[in-house]
Amino acid sequence: MNRDDALALDGADVLAPLRDRFQLPDGLIYFDGNSLGALPIGVAERVADVVTQQWGHDLISSWNVNGWMAAPRRVGDKIAPIIGAGPGEVIVGDSTSVNIYKLLSAAVAMRPDRKVIVTEQNNFPSDSYVIASVAKQHGMEVHYLDLDDPTTPLDTNVAIVCLTHINYRTGAMHDLASITARVHAVGALMFWDLAHSAGAVPLALSDCDVDMAVGCGYKFLNGGPGAPAFAYVAKRLQNDVHHPITGWLGHAAPFDMSDQFIPALGIDRITVGTPSIVSLVALEAALDAFDGVDMADVRAKSLALGDYLIELVMHRCDGYGLSLASPIDSQRRGSQVSFVHEHGFPVVRALADVGVLGDYREPGIIRFGLTPLYARFCDVYDAVDRLSEILRTERWREPQYAVRGAVT
Amino acid sequence: MNRDDALALDGADVLAPLRDRFQLPDGLIYFDGNSLGALPIGVAERVADVVTQQWGHDLISSWNVNGWMAAPRRVGDKIAPIIGAGPGEVIVGDSTSVNIYKLLSAAVAMRPDRKVIVTEQNNFPSDSYVIASVAKQHGMEVHYLDLDDPTTPLDTNVAIVCLTHINYRTGAMHDLASITARVHAVGALMFWDLAHSAGAVPLALSDCDVDMAVGCGYKFLNGGPGAPAFAYVAKRLQNDVHHPITGWLGHAAPFDMSDQFIPALGIDRITVGTPSIVSLVALEAALDAFDGVDMADVRAKSLALGDYLIELVMHRCDGYGLSLASPIDSQRRGSQVSFVHEHGFPVVRALADVGVLGDYREPGIIRFGLTPLYARFCDVYDAVDRLSEILRTERWREPQYAVRGAVT
Repeated sequence: MNRDDALALDGADVLAPLRDRFQLPDGLIYFDGNSLGALPIGVAERVADVVTQQWGHDLISSWNVNGWMAAPRRVGDKIAPIIGAGPGEVIVGDSTSVNIYKLLSAAVAMRPDRKVIVTEQNNFPSDSYVIASVAKQHGMEVHYLDLDDPTTPLDTNVAIVCLTHINYRTGAMHDLASITARVHAVGALMFWDLAHSAGAVPLALSDCDVDMAVGCGYKFLNGGPGAPAFAYVAKRLQNDVHHPITGWLGHAAPFDMSDQFIPALGIDRITVGTPSIVSLVALEAALDAFDGVDMADVRAKSLALGDYLIELVMHRCDGYGLSLASPIDSQRRGSQVSFVHEHGFPVVRALADVGVLGDYREPGIIRFGLTPLYARFCDVYDAVDRLSEILRTERWREPQYAVRGAVT
Repeated sequence: MNRDDALALDGADVLAPLRDRFQLPDGLIYFDGNSLGALPIGVAERVADVVTQQWGHDLISSWNVNGWMAAPRRVGDKIAPIIGAGPGEVIVGDSTSVNIYKLLSAAVAMRPDRKVIVTEQNNFPSDSYVIASVAKQHGMEVHYLDLDDPTTPLDTNVAIVCLTHINYRTGAMHDLASITARVHAVGALMFWDLAHSAGAVPLALSDCDVDMAVGCGYKFLNGGPGAPAFAYVAKRLQNDVHHPITGWLGHAAPFDMSDQFIPALGIDRITVGTPSIVSLVALEAALDAFDGVDMADVRAKSLALGDYLIELVMHRCDGYGLSLASPIDSQRRGSQVSFVHEHGFPVVRALADVGVLGDYREPGIIRFGLTPLYARFCDVYDAVDRLSEILRTERWREPQYAVRGAVT
């Protein structure tokens, strides 16, 4: 287990050439693509064009001649194959949190006689908060169940089950196919938050008959800070979806400017206001990094990177108070490996100081996001090398590493 | 009334130097800043920096070191003086339509015993649709009243009055101060949609004691296509505002990642998800165009431009089927002049073909947005010159001008 082994693994990596599709700072080991994906090559040029030429020169005509009107749908169709959805099943716009609200509100109205929303403990805060808010608005109860346990019962009082496919703290991944099937068996709708899944692991939303999903544009899809989110609704359900944020661009004929809201047919009804074009174009250009990429290869490399990281940490950081917070079974992990350490925050800060960017989440969680499109095995080797040194020397105890600042 | 008069007016215009703050295509007369403001100088450079340096190089640390976390509040504070609000009363994020939903939902919950939302006929579609949706969710009625008539009664069953300050079709402007006072006299809340007002006319939200407002980043604030919108809530009300889209960044301590939603104190609770940084920075840079600008000067020039346009049209387009759709009384107009023509759509298209960009709204409305920061009196002269020629020759009857395309 020396650095030459890591270099040999990189040499055999079929995805290695994809690293050239990203602009990465020299010398930085970036393991935070689960929070903010790195900048793909070509995005800056596309953004400059949309600002200077399309906005600055073509002005209002760009809604037609430069395809701005069609952008939410077009970028959605570009995400669709990455998540195993069909054309016209994905639309881009608003934030993940706003999309959760829209889809959940619509879902509970599709099961009006059922009074329970099922979710999980330790969901991402926006999911937990919005689920509670929608439940309160509709006089429903929220039940927190462990659906990884196949014996956990569901009943016909459940309107919708809302889970995050890959947990943001631990990287633990649910079995999407089997849980979706169990939810459907009681006539409930299945909603997946794919924030940490899209672009990181293979997904088959259509094949698994998933009803609704949302996901994030700025993590493994690399769309830039606060990139617009996506919403997926299965074709068969789209015209039954009625969400309460009835903005003009969700109308069947927005430019008729009629007084009555008539929702657009299909996925377009999920759109609310005028789309944020500059951010949409950045995301669209970023998705070119997935051109010709087989998500099965992404998954294989992701698991290899994760297994290698865990193995190295077990060997080189033993006795320093780290414990694995992610599943040891790689099949149950997303593209992230997390550890718990009593002093996780200063450890993450000290690591950043030696050029290894992971991040920290309460309580005590050190996260390493492994983006197979640009992460290398030698990066994993070097990161653990520096981590072990920081832990061995207790360098993280230096006072500057205790200073808190927001990181997202 | 010849072109030399127009040039003399431009020579005496104290705001004339502001035109150099914008990148405008050579030879184009752009009267559509009420739909998409022109590109301010400096925006492209700031956007390039946020993409290449802040995202590409500084990556996740930008949330702290480049001030991304504070951007929604910081850009709000930059808009505040333009609309007569105080620091901490304005926050930027989401679309106008989403913000209408958030604030209206919160408002009706603040008057739980009242069962009426008052609005107006011919409001912008998103406003009408979202008002209807919120009313339905809360079991309320929507009453359509003409509050420009000072004898229109209001009663104590009214929870909130929601009006658009300047009508998007006609440019007609409500008397914000007197209507707000009448609404408060019956104990209701006053909500203004300032989409066509912010940056176009002087506003005094604090002095007029306005409760809530929203506005658009991409019209007279020139923030770029689909720029994030702003939301205003009076300081005195902020901690009573509870909207249902409870995303993690509206939490008092988002990075505690707690299970219970505790709203942030103040305006920050309006934020939902991770802000769209590239778009926010574009808007922030665009607002530099207002540095040192007195909104009273903006208003004076706006009215002079509008009066001049109306006068020229009356003289030069008489008998061609145009009628004024905007108030003739300039004090009741925003920064837009609209005309009705039976064939308004092809007339607008034919005008665009000779380098005059206005726009069209059903039914039959030709809109000319007059942005005092870059519109000139000679532009008005030349636009009417070309308009009269198109009407006189009936050039708009050429078949290519009948082809419809979306314009927003």
